[in-house]
Amino acid sequence: MNDTPPRTMSAGECWQALREHEFGRLAYRLLGDVHITPINYAVDGDALLFRTAQGNKLLSAVMHEPVALEIDELGSEDAWSVVVRGRAEVLGETDAQRAEQVPLRPWVAGDKDSVVRIVAVEVTGRRFRLSKPWEHIVPTS
Amino acid sequence: MNDTPPRTMSAGECWQALREHEFGRLAYRLLGDVHITPINYAVDGDALLFRTAQGNKLLSAVMHEPVALEIDELGSEDAWSVVVRGRAEVLGETDAQRAEQVPLRPWVAGDKDSVVRIVAVEVTGRRFRLSKPWEHIVPTS
Repeated sequence: MNDTPPRTMSAGECWQALREHEFGRLAYRLLGDVHITPINYAVDGDALLFRTAQGNKLLSAVMHEPVALEIDELGSEDAWSVVVRGRAEVLGETDAQRAEQVPLRPWVAGDKDSVVRIVAVEVTGRRFRLSKPWEHIVPTS
Repeated sequence: MNDTPPRTMSAGECWQALREHEFGRLAYRLLGDVHITPINYAVDGDALLFRTAQGNKLLSAVMHEPVALEIDELGSEDAWSVVVRGRAEVLGETDAQRAEQVPLRPWVAGDKDSVVRIVAVEVTGRRFRLSKPWEHIVPTS
């Protein structure tokens, strides 16, 4: 068993990681259920932007609701995960043009006219030293 | 813009991917908010197992609540994502011994006595062909 506890990442480290990535997973509620979907995002100041289609199920689901976005990286020795929690809002046309100024690129097909902004309320990150699997094989009695 | 729509993965493909991986993200509700956290899991029949500590915030949060677990892989040309939705339940001692029979390995430090099972209610997966970024640079007017 690896006894190294997870290390908390500073806010600076978390934002650095967020800026260096563009692919995350968004968790949100819809009709009492919890959903999670991959999205690509861009950092704009203290907010995250992503594109979605008008009338999209995701769009209606996230409007003014609490959401959480996660990014992570898994190495052979360690892993880290950053989570941004906040509320989602759809940008008006003027604000939406900001999305042209940030590297917010839709990766997949379809009209994605709406730009959604998540203003970060809480940003947390943790680094884990991974246990070596062969170090904690438990003998069965 | 890449016009290839996402392709739906079959249930078989989804389970194959779930069996081949052990690192995912769990989305759940707690006090009206949505949370997301990285976990490692194992497949056991049509369920997923993961370990957590007794009295853990995660444990109380997921008990009998709807949860969603996501795994994904991002390549240079394409990406895929599989989402399992279901409800979480804590296993009794006998059932928990099943966790010794599956490759469920806690990666990080700490006592993780409780085994949580998520019985899959819905399993969905999508494959995306990624757009080439240089193909959709939009001229600013």
